[in-house]
Amino acid sequence: MVLVNGVSTEQIIARDRGLMYGDGVFRTFLMKKGRIQNWKRQYEKLHSDCAALHISCPEEVFFLRDFSIMTQDTPNGVLRLTVTRGESARGYAVNPGQPVTRIISLTALPVFDSAILNEGVRVRWCETRLARQPRLAGIKHLNRLENVLARLEWHDPLIFEGVMRDTEGDVIEGVSSNLVFREGENWYTPDLSMCGVAGVQRSRLMELVQTGIKEVQVRPQRLLDADEVMICNSVMGLLQIREMEDRTWGKGKSISELRALLEAEDEA
Amino acid sequence: MVLVNGVSTEQIIARDRGLMYGDGVFRTFLMKKGRIQNWKRQYEKLHSDCAALHISCPEEVFFLRDFSIMTQDTPNGVLRLTVTRGESARGYAVNPGQPVTRIISLTALPVFDSAILNEGVRVRWCETRLARQPRLAGIKHLNRLENVLARLEWHDPLIFEGVMRDTEGDVIEGVSSNLVFREGENWYTPDLSMCGVAGVQRSRLMELVQTGIKEVQVRPQRLLDADEVMICNSVMGLLQIREMEDRTWGKGKSISELRALLEAEDEA
Repeated sequence: MVLVNGVSTEQIIARDRGLMYGDGVFRTFLMKKGRIQNWKRQYEKLHSDCAALHISCPEEVFFLRDFSIMTQDTPNGVLRLTVTRGESARGYAVNPGQPVTRIISLTALPVFDSAILNEGVRVRWCETRLARQPRLAGIKHLNRLENVLARLEWHDPLIFEGVMRDTEGDVIEGVSSNLVFREGENWYTPDLSMCGVAGVQRSRLMELVQTGIKEVQVRPQRLLDADEVMICNSVMGLLQIREMEDRTWGKGKSISELRALLEAEDEA
Repeated sequence: MVLVNGVSTEQIIARDRGLMYGDGVFRTFLMKKGRIQNWKRQYEKLHSDCAALHISCPEEVFFLRDFSIMTQDTPNGVLRLTVTRGESARGYAVNPGQPVTRIISLTALPVFDSAILNEGVRVRWCETRLARQPRLAGIKHLNRLENVLARLEWHDPLIFEGVMRDTEGDVIEGVSSNLVFREGENWYTPDLSMCGVAGVQRSRLMELVQTGIKEVQVRPQRLLDADEVMICNSVMGLLQIREMEDRTWGKGKSISELRALLEAEDEA
């Protein structure tokens, strides 16, 4: 099911700047029993991403109206919410006062194998690098060719995720997830001031973990030497990396604890 | 007028990867009296850009059929041709065998002021920088947020174009054009191996200018010190830069000559 500016349709206008230039932002998150998980944080992030690109973010009430239409049919699923800078004449220049386009789509909840949830996942290094662009770093915008090319690198269904480095070799994120890792009792996550998407689950963990999660530069060996490594996003939640090419990790001591922190807030 | 996969429509499917991730490439060029300018080169560039992203480029015959439909109504205009990786399920992974989407739109020929054509243009420096990403450099893909943000920097209609530098400060291109410049009798153009779009007009000039045009690293001062600077693309052709913030140039001796080279080939 798709709503474009509140209207049920499968289509958008071909001259939308989202298509022409990737000129927009998006978010992906879960709806369960008609309730949007972490909506407040998701909307805040959408709003700040729009602001960073000088796109006027639709008011919250429009999304709430869309959700109420969505939930009439299906109370559970993955919502993707896209805001583009709207229609355009040819060329990069923006028509003043052009209304934005708001697209909401609902797809089925993914089913994760219980082994993945309980035991963890296998990941690989991606060869495709992320460019360093501080102007766009952190924003979940529609210019995602680097992630697409990285995801094209493997077909093995046993590999759950790829880990991306930037053009200088620093570890940044998973293709569609963020990374957090533990060294002893200290938690870290790659610094995203040069590239990568600063996801909502990562922000939540940074607030929920009592000792904090420090943003640091991460060379590949540091990740491999960590005591426990996890990936997170708003669809998968939090998963432990158990195997990364030649490196394996035992079942981590912290994954259940961190997951409990997230779930307690989800249900609050 | 818009054709999507050969069918006249204004719409594309909202789950097209072109919209979801900017996952595609495009070209913009002129049709005059029903004839596509430099079609052979345009198609070659489209094909190689698709190949670079592992997108299967539609065969030429499909575009020729689209053009024959287009020209029935209007023999003159600007054609924009977009190829995306087609529809997608949610997520970056690509469905094997998924057909691509082919979009062709026709808009009115722009009318350039005769002063612009005969005398040249005023340009500015953009603050928005291009990230260094050799994997995508040269390709005219749909991830164009840097260009969009650069074009948002000015509203003065007397400024025709903005000149973009990369994150290291090297001069790369105009927001929607390439740069060529002359020092004495020698011609140069910024090296595009780290970022920027390698346009068809630039490639044509590199072949048509008898002494060649050398690709070089260009620091800002070098551009300002040049004897003659021009911007080019397939819609504007070739225009001389006469004013760049405080720097002004007299009418150049070479613009007519280079333009004649391009036009002779256009009409051949």
